[in-house]
Amino acid sequence: MARRARNSRKRDMAQTGPVPSPHIQRTLPHFDVLDDEQLSRLEGQVDWILQDVGIAFRDDPEALELWKREGATVEGDLVKAPADWIRALCAKAPSEFTQLARNRDRSVTIGGKNQVFAPVYGAPFVRDLEGGRRYGDQAAFEDLVRLTYMHPNLHHGGFVTCEPCDIPVSKRHLDMLFAHMTLSDKPHLGAITEMSRAQDSIDMAEIVFGADVMAENCVIMGNVNTNSPLLVDRVVTESARVYSARGQGLIVVPFILSGAMGPVSTAASVAQAMAEAMMVCAYVQLIRPGAPFVLGNFLSSMSLKTGAPTFGMPEPVISNYAIAQLARRAGLPLRCGGSLTASKVEDAQAAYESADSMHSTMLAGANFVLHSAGWLEGGLCTGFEKLIMDADRLGGYQKVLSQGLDTSDEALARDAYTEVEAGGHFLGCGHTMRHYQTAFYEPALSDSDNVESWEEGGSLEMRQRAHARWTQMLQEYQQPAIDPAMRDELSAYVAKRKEELPDAWY
Amino acid sequence: MARRARNSRKRDMAQTGPVPSPHIQRTLPHFDVLDDEQLSRLEGQVDWILQDVGIAFRDDPEALELWKREGATVEGDLVKAPADWIRALCAKAPSEFTQLARNRDRSVTIGGKNQVFAPVYGAPFVRDLEGGRRYGDQAAFEDLVRLTYMHPNLHHGGFVTCEPCDIPVSKRHLDMLFAHMTLSDKPHLGAITEMSRAQDSIDMAEIVFGADVMAENCVIMGNVNTNSPLLVDRVVTESARVYSARGQGLIVVPFILSGAMGPVSTAASVAQAMAEAMMVCAYVQLIRPGAPFVLGNFLSSMSLKTGAPTFGMPEPVISNYAIAQLARRAGLPLRCGGSLTASKVEDAQAAYESADSMHSTMLAGANFVLHSAGWLEGGLCTGFEKLIMDADRLGGYQKVLSQGLDTSDEALARDAYTEVEAGGHFLGCGHTMRHYQTAFYEPALSDSDNVESWEEGGSLEMRQRAHARWTQMLQEYQQPAIDPAMRDELSAYVAKRKEELPDAWY
Repeated sequence: MARRARNSRKRDMAQTGPVPSPHIQRTLPHFDVLDDEQLSRLEGQVDWILQDVGIAFRDDPEALELWKREGATVEGDLVKAPADWIRALCAKAPSEFTQLARNRDRSVTIGGKNQVFAPVYGAPFVRDLEGGRRYGDQAAFEDLVRLTYMHPNLHHGGFVTCEPCDIPVSKRHLDMLFAHMTLSDKPHLGAITEMSRAQDSIDMAEIVFGADVMAENCVIMGNVNTNSPLLVDRVVTESARVYSARGQGLIVVPFILSGAMGPVSTAASVAQAMAEAMMVCAYVQLIRPGAPFVLGNFLSSMSLKTGAPTFGMPEPVISNYAIAQLARRAGLPLRCGGSLTASKVEDAQAAYESADSMHSTMLAGANFVLHSAGWLEGGLCTGFEKLIMDADRLGGYQKVLSQGLDTSDEALARDAYTEVEAGGHFLGCGHTMRHYQTAFYEPALSDSDNVESWEEGGSLEMRQRAHARWTQMLQEYQQPAIDPAMRDELSAYVAKRKEELPDAWY
Repeated sequence: MARRARNSRKRDMAQTGPVPSPHIQRTLPHFDVLDDEQLSRLEGQVDWILQDVGIAFRDDPEALELWKREGATVEGDLVKAPADWIRALCAKAPSEFTQLARNRDRSVTIGGKNQVFAPVYGAPFVRDLEGGRRYGDQAAFEDLVRLTYMHPNLHHGGFVTCEPCDIPVSKRHLDMLFAHMTLSDKPHLGAITEMSRAQDSIDMAEIVFGADVMAENCVIMGNVNTNSPLLVDRVVTESARVYSARGQGLIVVPFILSGAMGPVSTAASVAQAMAEAMMVCAYVQLIRPGAPFVLGNFLSSMSLKTGAPTFGMPEPVISNYAIAQLARRAGLPLRCGGSLTASKVEDAQAAYESADSMHSTMLAGANFVLHSAGWLEGGLCTGFEKLIMDADRLGGYQKVLSQGLDTSDEALARDAYTEVEAGGHFLGCGHTMRHYQTAFYEPALSDSDNVESWEEGGSLEMRQRAHARWTQMLQEYQQPAIDPAMRDELSAYVAKRKEELPDAWY
């Protein structure tokens, strides 16, 4: 398809498929855990890292050249820069921006009071009650894309919902992109592991959105980790050159296991994460002022017994609240948290840890939440039941955030008290009849029956109900409408690139 | 034992047994979800209920007499009173007070920035992995008292940790009190179901603490529900006459299933709970100004499918934050929330719901949290595994609340950055060596092993690990030291009262 035809492509949306799942527009106030002194101590630490400690930009002379040219101090590959200059550069990034979806009703705004939930990212294994634990493959990946598309509480498709390990590493990004673009019409991320794969993501997005739309809008984003501590490698800087240079989004996430990739202190790890991400944000703004940027933080605690990372623990819980307050002060959209757990299965441990992690993520005001559903085993495994159980809980958070407490006259229900006497009941009064159908969040997977009914129904646990639900959802799946020409062009792109690329398994 | 001997009884504490589990002294700021306008709308509604709607005091002419004498408007059994008078009476209640424990190291302060966790209360059934679901009995009850005593994250014994259904209803309070007083040395509650049972509780507490200590201190409390909507029955007013008149604590809890015992609106239900509890607080202050009082709130949402109460849902989550803000404004200690769930078993549903319920309870600043561990089936069943799993999670909340984020120089760890280079690791640096042993909360029941180790260990789920843990704890249980004379006197009191009382099973 010629560029002109592509440019003039309009919304190709059929309004079929599941109900739109717009992101959350928060009305609930934020929870500020840090006082002014703590804020200034942490920000002082960030400034000290930027100015005096420095952050290395490794294996990418072009990045160092840019820093030098713009006036930073470069010692070897260590970049140091005045904190107010870095902060001024960060201020050029939008505090909120919209990522368009193929179905514009599913476009999401990231930043400010907006909160967007996306599923788990990057797990090489999958698990479900029937198939057990196994390597992820393209079939599982596509089912996960379908489920994410169908679930109203997931606003964004993420990207590597599991690794399709049956496809060569060199090619699987093409199949993943094709699946996101054709099996779903929600927004999603692109590849970052190599510059050419990032470029494929951008090129395929251009087929979907057209170059003119893409020139003015964020339609795809890359999600990259720094190499903590204090190290930015070429995966990050090349992603910035591909995504940010085109005005597309970049999410930069220091992953810090406190005591390993950062000091064994939550405050120090949070400050380090801020410094690393802000330094990359500044770099991005040097490449293209105003390019959408999401400041990320992924902080884990550690088991003293084994040295293994732990999740849902008090240290990352408090870090979610703290980093969010710092990000708001910096005016940058935030990614943090998720429904995280070290559990191998979808048991009580998984749920406790995921809920505490996600409750704090939610209240903190994280603007983009990767891993909000499906994560098991410290991120090594995507659980099908876990995905559906987590997503069910997200609906409750959505209500807390978007509605807060309604104290309108209608909510105060004074008329109800004229109908109901002391010791009576409100079951049939006018106010109840007006509101009972919408008063409560109705989760799909929580069983509130009495024990007798529950036993008659087979004494099913939540994971068994989740299994029944996701298998049913897949049976009911209907592919969202897509312009056949767009689909053919995407397909041809994938075929061509697959021919060009060698099969590589690493 | 003569009163004089009892009065002169000193701390009879042997410092044996599990480590002291002091309550939480919060340093984390509170999370205020309501703005000034919402606060004044809710408080206006409370005032309207107090003044214009009224609250019935039923089946207790003595209570109505007192209200009349003090100047309230009494219409039938409906009591209406000027809101500022009720608020002025509530202001006489202490904003925080200490409940002494037999072991003074375990005394708890309730109110202000203090938060106290107690186990489930009132379940007729118990469940564990080996014995399944069955009626509670005295043996199970005593084991639950032992476990609560031993667990460092439970600060308070509560009272009816399960119903000992093998003991006549008319007598079981005596056995429960005896168990709390001799198998544990933590603070606990007393009976409220009948005035004579409340009196037995006070009398037995007097054996433990002596009349002189009791004249000056809270050593026992009663926990009673109002009969929502807007109804206070004689269980409440008689408990007030027994507990409050002696200067002992009273926790008054409107239990509101929105749409049944209150309007189908969280705001209206919260305001109604405030009004009901404040009216009783005012009544208590008329009986004895300064008597310790805890304002309670127990709000449940409802399943539209079945009408059954639901837990851990967004409506009670937001209500925890809202009622806490109102209680702080009223200057009254608060009881709300808990680790609540409608699940029948200790599965993921139980954990998700309990965690969201408890995370909000914790952050809200609830000063006394009954049901913080062990609750299943909407409160009908105490789970042994659930008790131990919930309690394990409470330690994380304790750390979040009491420590917040440490931003001291030592926490900022600047010296670590002189030792560790970009891309290096902090595993062996001086700062890590100084702190790694105390940096992270180490839960007993979360498994963070990799999947291979976990499978080698038998692929145990959290509930299986919890089962192993509580059975092990009971094997290691050692009864806390007690003055033999005190024990004998308690025993004699129970024996005498059991002779006097008929066996009654209702």
